[in-house]
Amino acid sequence: MKRLVLKFGGTSVGTIEKIKKVANIIKKIFNEGNEIIVIVSAMMGATDELKKKSNLISNNFDDKELDVLLSSGEQVSCSLLSGAIIDLGLKARSWQGWQIPILTDANHTSSNIMRIKTEEISNFVSQGGIAVITGFQGVSMDNRITTLGRGGSDLSAVVIAKFFRADSCEIYTDVDGIFTTDPSINNNAKKIDKISYEEMLEMASLGAKVMQPNAVQASMVDNIPIHVKSTFSEKPGTKIISESEIDHKKAVTGIAYSKRNAKVSVIGVVDKPGVAADIFEPIGKNNINVDMVIQNTSLDGKKANVTFTIKREDLNKTLSLIEKSKQKLNYNKIIHDDKLAKVSIIGAGMIANPGVTYKMFRALADMKINILAISTSEIKISVLIREDLTQKAVKALHKSFELN
Amino acid sequence: MKRLVLKFGGTSVGTIEKIKKVANIIKKIFNEGNEIIVIVSAMMGATDELKKKSNLISNNFDDKELDVLLSSGEQVSCSLLSGAIIDLGLKARSWQGWQIPILTDANHTSSNIMRIKTEEISNFVSQGGIAVITGFQGVSMDNRITTLGRGGSDLSAVVIAKFFRADSCEIYTDVDGIFTTDPSINNNAKKIDKISYEEMLEMASLGAKVMQPNAVQASMVDNIPIHVKSTFSEKPGTKIISESEIDHKKAVTGIAYSKRNAKVSVIGVVDKPGVAADIFEPIGKNNINVDMVIQNTSLDGKKANVTFTIKREDLNKTLSLIEKSKQKLNYNKIIHDDKLAKVSIIGAGMIANPGVTYKMFRALADMKINILAISTSEIKISVLIREDLTQKAVKALHKSFELN
Repeated sequence: MKRLVLKFGGTSVGTIEKIKKVANIIKKIFNEGNEIIVIVSAMMGATDELKKKSNLISNNFDDKELDVLLSSGEQVSCSLLSGAIIDLGLKARSWQGWQIPILTDANHTSSNIMRIKTEEISNFVSQGGIAVITGFQGVSMDNRITTLGRGGSDLSAVVIAKFFRADSCEIYTDVDGIFTTDPSINNNAKKIDKISYEEMLEMASLGAKVMQPNAVQASMVDNIPIHVKSTFSEKPGTKIISESEIDHKKAVTGIAYSKRNAKVSVIGVVDKPGVAADIFEPIGKNNINVDMVIQNTSLDGKKANVTFTIKREDLNKTLSLIEKSKQKLNYNKIIHDDKLAKVSIIGAGMIANPGVTYKMFRALADMKINILAISTSEIKISVLIREDLTQKAVKALHKSFELN
Repeated sequence: MKRLVLKFGGTSVGTIEKIKKVANIIKKIFNEGNEIIVIVSAMMGATDELKKKSNLISNNFDDKELDVLLSSGEQVSCSLLSGAIIDLGLKARSWQGWQIPILTDANHTSSNIMRIKTEEISNFVSQGGIAVITGFQGVSMDNRITTLGRGGSDLSAVVIAKFFRADSCEIYTDVDGIFTTDPSINNNAKKIDKISYEEMLEMASLGAKVMQPNAVQASMVDNIPIHVKSTFSEKPGTKIISESEIDHKKAVTGIAYSKRNAKVSVIGVVDKPGVAADIFEPIGKNNINVDMVIQNTSLDGKKANVTFTIKREDLNKTLSLIEKSKQKLNYNKIIHDDKLAKVSIIGAGMIANPGVTYKMFRALADMKINILAISTSEIKISVLIREDLTQKAVKALHKSFELN
């Protein structure tokens, strides 16, 4: 008998009909002789709808109350799914985060799970019950509802799989698994059968939307096997496992992209120690995430240009922060561009294939796509390009690295 | 400094704009130097919408999971209202039933409040905080969410007022108070300034919809002054207080009615001890509420006719239960009518005015309205009439008892 954690996302429980379908999937897996712990997201659209209500009350809605509000979304889906399973003649019960409890820190709207009490649910599932747990939420030490941040249900599933020593964590979603690239912009995209935690982490961080990066990271740390599959087909999906269990035949496993990037160049700052800190300190303090950073020194070594990328929606705030530091930074001018995309090739096989960088640049050059910035790690290369060339670049790279 | 419990119903928090308005009402009352505990219902329509979802899952949706589902409605309104109060610069916090806790029995979907822990909220409000509590819900001894049944937020307010030793319990609703009769069928209806618990209990039980009967009963038992008023006007509302504090100038205080009544007559049962029990036992076991009961004995004393009233929606089930007992009851036939209404006159002043019954029957007779059954108590007289004559009857009685 295996103990499985099954996580169903918002699209999988988006309607009453889909909830009934999910109940039947659970029944089937239960009848195969497994112990089942289910994690469920809010019904598709529910969280956005609640968030919209809070914004209509205040642009600065209290974050503790926001957690109370948003957590109601999973409460609805969780009770409906439990009711649907019971209606199929099985023993099931819902658990809210506070009922277990899933203890988190008090960092409201983006809390971290600290520990989970397992006894009650372990007894329940070992006696043939199906436990249905709300994803995304927990409770703080001072008994207030917390949430894990957007997409937190994946993280809930992985951490619950860890605490309950599950044999596998299955992430049910609306696609067949992880693809070599986004099928919506390249119909040559192929489903990947197996991918390493490290590759998946890069894919997720660099734009692939199927799984949240922090959930992938948590599964990597504790070596929890993840199986991403579709709620709506019987296809086998994608297994996320250790690097050592994968035989890399290809240098590149997948291609990810993210649009809505902006680039800011601070031109002609004095090239002295601490200037980067002076630029980035106020940006960091305002919770703006800086992605790529490039610093060029002028030929005479006295002036430098600092270029960095951020999300498009952070551009105006970033510009005003840099303008505020004008006296301190003493720069000549700022130039910016907010219609950029980052395209990345990811593959653990890259390490053994030295020609990958060249091949990437060649493929883009052949399509006359200009590279505006580059960043690399051991298993990925990202380039910044014009946003309107994203699809062209992805298709070219997908073909060039033999993923078609 | 007074400690006030303020309860806002579903229509009062039916939209974001209304929630903001309620926040401003609370701020005003707080600034007058009061300690405030707020009880809030789900936004209008929310509970029905959730109930509908559960019915689409199953006609026999698990009642424990139904409580989890329905309680999310108050969770939403409670967090939105708390956020709106905080946005006005005040200190506020939401509490779910389980956070306080409001301990109930485990009679899911119609639980009874057993006790309420008051320390945390008492400290909070005595330090200038505004506590916002979900109505309608609690938590059982085994840590599961419970609800008090339809309209339970009024009951929550009254019981919370009792446990927190509040000076007054103010029920904010969408009408100006309690009226002599339903203004929607008689535009001569007048707002009542003061009404006794006993009269209000009869009014509520007999069809007036402003307050739930069980909430009135709870306030009567503990002598908690209730003030029913409108969220949307500054008018003074209706005070529900002890009989002894009211000077009854009129015999009749108000006129209530309920439509959708059905009458069943079991004709020709053997007139022996236990026959009523044989009829009503299966009906009671099926949770069907029997209202009026009339038993007529035939002239020879051997056969009897038993007539009783129930809600229209219970008619088919009731008929099939009686048909199942045909052998045991050995009746001749059943006749029934499901288009009936009950109209009641209520007044504590009735006791001192012996002519009330006659006056009521005279007024109805003058309008050619036939009385099909009668039931009385010390402070009310109810008659069963044809449903389509309801408005005519209410208007005639309203005029006859000088309530216009």
